[in-house]
Amino acid sequence: MAPISELLRLAPGTRLAEVDPHGKPGFDGAKSAGKRALPAMGTELADLSEKLFAEAYTGADRAGRRVLLVLQGMDTSGKGGVVSHTVGLLGPESVHLTSFKKPTEEELAHDFLWRVEKELPERGTVGIFDRSHYEDVLVARVHRLVDAAEIERRYDAINDFERRIAESGTAVVKCMLHISPEEQRKRLLARLDEPTKQWKFKPGDVDERRLWPAYQQAYELALERCNTDVAPWYVVPSDRKWYRNWAIGMLLLETLRGMGLSWPAPDYDVAAQRARLQDRAL
Amino acid sequence: MAPISELLRLAPGTRLAEVDPHGKPGFDGAKSAGKRALPAMGTELADLSEKLFAEAYTGADRAGRRVLLVLQGMDTSGKGGVVSHTVGLLGPESVHLTSFKKPTEEELAHDFLWRVEKELPERGTVGIFDRSHYEDVLVARVHRLVDAAEIERRYDAINDFERRIAESGTAVVKCMLHISPEEQRKRLLARLDEPTKQWKFKPGDVDERRLWPAYQQAYELALERCNTDVAPWYVVPSDRKWYRNWAIGMLLLETLRGMGLSWPAPDYDVAAQRARLQDRAL
Repeated sequence: MAPISELLRLAPGTRLAEVDPHGKPGFDGAKSAGKRALPAMGTELADLSEKLFAEAYTGADRAGRRVLLVLQGMDTSGKGGVVSHTVGLLGPESVHLTSFKKPTEEELAHDFLWRVEKELPERGTVGIFDRSHYEDVLVARVHRLVDAAEIERRYDAINDFERRIAESGTAVVKCMLHISPEEQRKRLLARLDEPTKQWKFKPGDVDERRLWPAYQQAYELALERCNTDVAPWYVVPSDRKWYRNWAIGMLLLETLRGMGLSWPAPDYDVAAQRARLQDRAL
Repeated sequence: MAPISELLRLAPGTRLAEVDPHGKPGFDGAKSAGKRALPAMGTELADLSEKLFAEAYTGADRAGRRVLLVLQGMDTSGKGGVVSHTVGLLGPESVHLTSFKKPTEEELAHDFLWRVEKELPERGTVGIFDRSHYEDVLVARVHRLVDAAEIERRYDAINDFERRIAESGTAVVKCMLHISPEEQRKRLLARLDEPTKQWKFKPGDVDERRLWPAYQQAYELALERCNTDVAPWYVVPSDRKWYRNWAIGMLLLETLRGMGLSWPAPDYDVAAQRARLQDRAL
């Protein structure tokens, strides 16, 4: 089977409406198998993320490397679920998670990339953006928070920014969690029906939902304009939660495997250190 | 059985040498049972940490609350293991992990608590300090980086600081991971023998090890001076990894249970929102 990174890579000119939110490209099996396949990736994901960390820790040649996973999607598309189920498989010490909220006054007093730059992962780590700088071309476009020229400037600024971080050693993986409006309705209703989930619901979610077509258009434009080879967009069918979790796990796995990571060789004499440890009480 | 927070709480005047690093207070069973007991806590830990997050998210009355877990201990005592095995049981979105390294020049140009303040957990979250401001009275004392009067000033500053964060809603849990020098030797040798662990070893670890008695004394003084009711110290026997992971899980569990967390009630009309979601296509 082709790698997930090929199967989910957004092809130029793709309409989001053409991508089946209920699909499961690259997974040939049922839900139960999909749910089992995810934790089965855990050992390798933990191992590779620890190698990435080790490489930076010991200051080897390529020690500037890191990964940035960007998660975008409509409300209820499952960004939080991916964080819990997939990101949780990486070694916690190598994960740097940032949930971008509505910008603060201080953040708004700077360029939109200011707060993003500050949250970029350190070398050796995997940064996770739950929402990101893309909000500034999505929400900003739909709600006309800025004019069209500023949106255009931002697409270019994002491409420059992502090229810079890629060139300085960051593997950028951007995932759009693609759900259908029917699935969103089900999930919002489930939040209303379940006392442990009611806190996740805000009446404003329904207002945003009514802007669905405008958001889909804003996504299409943003994904099209910022779908570069160094920072590609993947559209992840997300009506099936288990597939979404599995697919993003596979994208991380393929990314980390592609980095050619290995345990750093010791830069000290192992036998001499062993002798030092054994030669006296302390 | 008494709560772990009683059993491990450092009693005034305790000599560290009197605490058995191989003990397992509060756990009546063998290793296999201890290893099983940890993931069994996972559901409740994830549930409680999500409630803590929900409370802050919805801006309820007591929404300023948070938890800070401080992990201190000699090299190989298992701070990283606790992060992987125990902290990993909390919901990743509610965890904020900081690993304090050797201070940078910028950090040294400020008071020692400057970098610590910046990493305090946001409301609704659980902050984890892998090393902490205690390094500034431990390493600083053993290596005489500052004079005795400055160390004294720092004890007082720490107590003031911890009282302030406790009074503004932070449950502070400080754990000293207590191992024997024999166990450390075994673990350092294991790092040397295992190619996947050699990167964790530095020759300087052996130099630090030879300062064991000085470190134990520095720990005793720091723990004694900064063992307040609002920010107590727990000494966690850590020669057995499974016990250490379990005991710190229990400390977190008891702390979160003691906060009386509950799912926030909705501040909107559930039926009205359900109707809005159902009344048209979007």
